Amino acid sequence: MSVGIRDIEQAAERLKGMAVKTPVLESPRLNQRLGGRVLFKAEGLQRTGSFKFRGAWNMISQIDPAKTPGGVVAFSSGNHAQGVAAAAQIRGLRAVIVMPADTPTIKQENTKGYGAEVVTYDRATQDREAIAGALVKERGAVLVPPFEHEHIIAGQGTAGLELAEEAAQRGVVLDDVLVNCSGGGLVAGVATAFAARSPSTKVYAVEPEGFDDTARSLRSGAREKNARASGSLLDALMSVSPGELTFAINKKLLAGAFAVSDAEACAAMRFAFDDLKLVVEPGGAAGLAALLHGRLPVEGRAIGVILSGGNVDAALYARILRGEL
Amino acid sequence: MSVGIRDIEQAAERLKGMAVKTPVLESPRLNQRLGGRVLFKAEGLQRTGSFKFRGAWNMISQIDPAKTPGGVVAFSSGNHAQGVAAAAQIRGLRAVIVMPADTPTIKQENTKGYGAEVVTYDRATQDREAIAGALVKERGAVLVPPFEHEHIIAGQGTAGLELAEEAAQRGVVLDDVLVNCSGGGLVAGVATAFAARSPSTKVYAVEPEGFDDTARSLRSGAREKNARASGSLLDALMSVSPGELTFAINKKLLAGAFAVSDAEACAAMRFAFDDLKLVVEPGGAAGLAALLHGRLPVEGRAIGVILSGGNVDAALYARILRGEL
Repeated sequence: MSVGIRDIEQAAERLKGMAVKTPVLESPRLNQRLGGRVLFKAEGLQRTGSFKFRGAWNMISQIDPAKTPGGVVAFSSGNHAQGVAAAAQIRGLRAVIVMPADTPTIKQENTKGYGAEVVTYDRATQDREAIAGALVKERGAVLVPPFEHEHIIAGQGTAGLELAEEAAQRGVVLDDVLVNCSGGGLVAGVATAFAARSPSTKVYAVEPEGFDDTARSLRSGAREKNARASGSLLDALMSVSPGELTFAINKKLLAGAFAVSDAEACAAMRFAFDDLKLVVEPGGAAGLAALLHGRLPVEGRAIGVILSGGNVDAALYARILRGEL
Repeated sequence: MSVGIRDIEQAAERLKGMAVKTPVLESPRLNQRLGGRVLFKAEGLQRTGSFKFRGAWNMISQIDPAKTPGGVVAFSSGNHAQGVAAAAQIRGLRAVIVMPADTPTIKQENTKGYGAEVVTYDRATQDREAIAGALVKERGAVLVPPFEHEHIIAGQGTAGLELAEEAAQRGVVLDDVLVNCSGGGLVAGVATAFAARSPSTKVYAVEPEGFDDTARSLRSGAREKNARASGSLLDALMSVSPGELTFAINKKLLAGAFAVSDAEACAAMRFAFDDLKLVVEPGGAAGLAALLHGRLPVEGRAIGVILSGGNVDAALYARILRGEL
């Protein structure tokens, strides 16, 4: 069981008219300054404010509501929660979402706004998978995992497929693509899309410092765990470890991984505000942070960056704009 | 001398590959809440952060640098300044911009960043047109006016042409379009585009309270002046009075005009942050404010809104997000 380009193409068909074909943006000023060309895939403009709707809809649209009265259950730090809740609402399915208690308010409120029931847990002491598992059993529901499923990976891969197609339309062959990485579903899907459509393009995962499980796993060849379970500003990217399925793909297809600090992500968010006029959340800005802080050469090259989400609380965003973080 | 659809189509040809074909975005959540369909034209994602690059490039690309060693001169509250500076830089023309001293810092800094010389004046006591006129004479430069020129109006009209074409592609006939209005160049161009491509669509100007010169002029049939020269948060929309050329077009083509308060514009900016993930400046949010505050019915209808710019200082934006304004 793995994911191929055909799965991503089928997901793209399912997403047609349901997901936003998010724009690919360029900053002529940044291109000039760096002497290269940077293509931004603005996934914050996706339905529910992040790429997560893609995978959620690809999986949930294949669930028959008549046969699934218990609906769906998901565990998520927030963006997957919103994607699942919105997709379930469209399909007329009940949804229960298990979220860490320290999830940004905007993500909790929006999830409820899409009609889902929210159950919170303590990130440090409780096991979200166990809580979700119990709910699935109790309600006869279907679990929609955040990354460890072929339908989810294929759905997320449509963001990569669209970026590859848009780059080709502009006559650009991307040298590198930077993809924010938590459990690795998005980067696995994007790498699969590029391997088929633009095989010379190198795809990199970008993680928060302290949550660089994919980077360490790529080096050791085995799935490594993070020491901490909380403490990064990049709340969307605090994974426990890479998935089995996602790591099998990423091990084969990724060119490497970078880690960025909270401060670098904040600087990237300010750049996105000033120059791109896009609201990007901390975890959504990791790839941009890696680019702006010189993790790879840009001069004379073409780089793709996926700005994966924009769900950030106004109070936190204001503090970051004021340079308090 | 007026502007027709052919002028706008020619401008679109000149802008190809130079300006961003800005995305048209929808919020499924807003559509659901209002029971209608709203199409947002995200002009903050335009080169230089506002629609102004369109008109500037349409005019400046037709100036021969060899015959114009004095370059170009413009007077502007900020967005036109950046559009002209960027267009002149691309053409290799010198640019001097006359700006009010109270212009947001980001707009002054960006204008200088595009290589232009900035001359400031006092909005309350000095006449910017006289200062610009003297510079034109002294340097043998060409004046690039903010709205009162066919090339400028035709250039701005390309935003309307793109919106009309995108709506048609989505099978939507827009009932109304809301366009932010200062001197009236953008709305005149947009109204001209819709009159040709979607004649049943009604086009409205949206102005700040206290700067509703176009609304009053439409009622009286003559060009009315505003009592004040400063004092609105919507700094991009503090016109003195409608232009002769723009008002001749707007008198014929507009369905009406609305005025919005500072507080309504701030609420609209917060909505754009939360729901659209777009940074919109106060003046860029006027049309959205009119929509959100019920100036026209949305239920069962389709409305276009041009979010005309995103150049807002971080400190002000943070205050607005925190609800201090």
